[in-house]
Amino acid sequence: MVESVVSQMDNGFTAAEKDAVYRAIRERRDVRAGYLPQPLEEATLQRLLAAAHHAPSVGFMQPWRFIVVRDLAIRSSVHDIFARARAAAAQTYSGERADLYAQLKLEALLEAPQHLCVVCDRTSERGHRLGRNTMLETSDYSVVCAIQNLWLAARAEGVGVGWVSILDPPAVKQLLRIPPAAEMVAYLCLGYVEKFAEAPDLLRYGWEERAGLASVVRAETYDQSYPFDRGSR
Amino acid sequence: MVESVVSQMDNGFTAAEKDAVYRAIRERRDVRAGYLPQPLEEATLQRLLAAAHHAPSVGFMQPWRFIVVRDLAIRSSVHDIFARARAAAAQTYSGERADLYAQLKLEALLEAPQHLCVVCDRTSERGHRLGRNTMLETSDYSVVCAIQNLWLAARAEGVGVGWVSILDPPAVKQLLRIPPAAEMVAYLCLGYVEKFAEAPDLLRYGWEERAGLASVVRAETYDQSYPFDRGSR
Repeated sequence: MVESVVSQMDNGFTAAEKDAVYRAIRERRDVRAGYLPQPLEEATLQRLLAAAHHAPSVGFMQPWRFIVVRDLAIRSSVHDIFARARAAAAQTYSGERADLYAQLKLEALLEAPQHLCVVCDRTSERGHRLGRNTMLETSDYSVVCAIQNLWLAARAEGVGVGWVSILDPPAVKQLLRIPPAAEMVAYLCLGYVEKFAEAPDLLRYGWEERAGLASVVRAETYDQSYPFDRGSR
Repeated sequence: MVESVVSQMDNGFTAAEKDAVYRAIRERRDVRAGYLPQPLEEATLQRLLAAAHHAPSVGFMQPWRFIVVRDLAIRSSVHDIFARARAAAAQTYSGERADLYAQLKLEALLEAPQHLCVVCDRTSERGHRLGRNTMLETSDYSVVCAIQNLWLAARAEGVGVGWVSILDPPAVKQLLRIPPAAEMVAYLCLGYVEKFAEAPDLLRYGWEERAGLASVVRAETYDQSYPFDRGSR
């Protein structure tokens, strides 16, 4: 009986705990509108950063660096960089697709009271190159794992996150004094929101359909479809 | 009263739900030993794949592809690729670090009853390049978000995940018939485990220390430390 309890401590999530994890995954959204003006409570922000810092990393390198941006002048400058990148991208579409692109709200850089620029310090010697000899890009991937940890924790906290990639990375790096050898992996808007949308914006506005699960899973090799209809094995 | 209930449906996680999300984040491990021989139940595996498929993606591109590998001959061939990459990496260390490297258990490719090779289809036209004009790498990053979703869901299910990056990606791509233009983002071991370690392997075995949160957070620009000691704002 004692052993059974110990085993549950080590391993088992209750059904309610499992549901909560799946709920965060299912209800997480990329939030580009509806941010509230009040800044995040410091304790909340630090819990989110700690969640990110608990991500897996290649060689235990922990190469992520988080720049918390609250200054309105900096936020406005980032918005300027976005606006130029958006205008350039708009030129690449035509017809109905161009009309749709023009209507999309793609960021909330001025509304969200804080941003998070997420950087990979590729030059860090932490981790002693373990796992990076043949796949150097895994340090960037570790940083993305940290972002997804933060994103899910934020959903549970009622905090919206919006990833803005319509940016010129060299311009942002110069603005935020990020060294040339470091990689800007992501630029996030962060803030309380009134509600989370039931479906992704790009689905609701007709930019793209949702792919079926069967279309992305393969069996044994890339060219063989997965037998979802075969039932339990 | 009704509005308050609606608002809670839209937004609020209970304290217990929040704790469950943070628990999954805190107790997730990179598992390289202790896999049990029984294969994953099909329904469990499909819940994990669905969790991955619910990740955010640039332009709603959903560029992830998952190859479920169970065939022992393929698993053995991947293990051979690992063994060669490990031997080559071992040559790059000397002294105590070389001794420590030789002792680390870094994968469980033969013990874990199934693998998951996670691929980015960079050539997919889904998403119509939204968000990728200036940051083409964001499609790979979307795939990593999917991996982290799966990793956290797996922890809640009592399923271990181990990311193996000591591999020669071109060799794995040839073995699994992955097209040249697609990127192998990750190769994962997957399976039930008896227990999860209390701390990361590389910390327990002395490969690397845990970095403090203060060392990875900056204020406004990359060169300014974050005032953690200032208390709440």
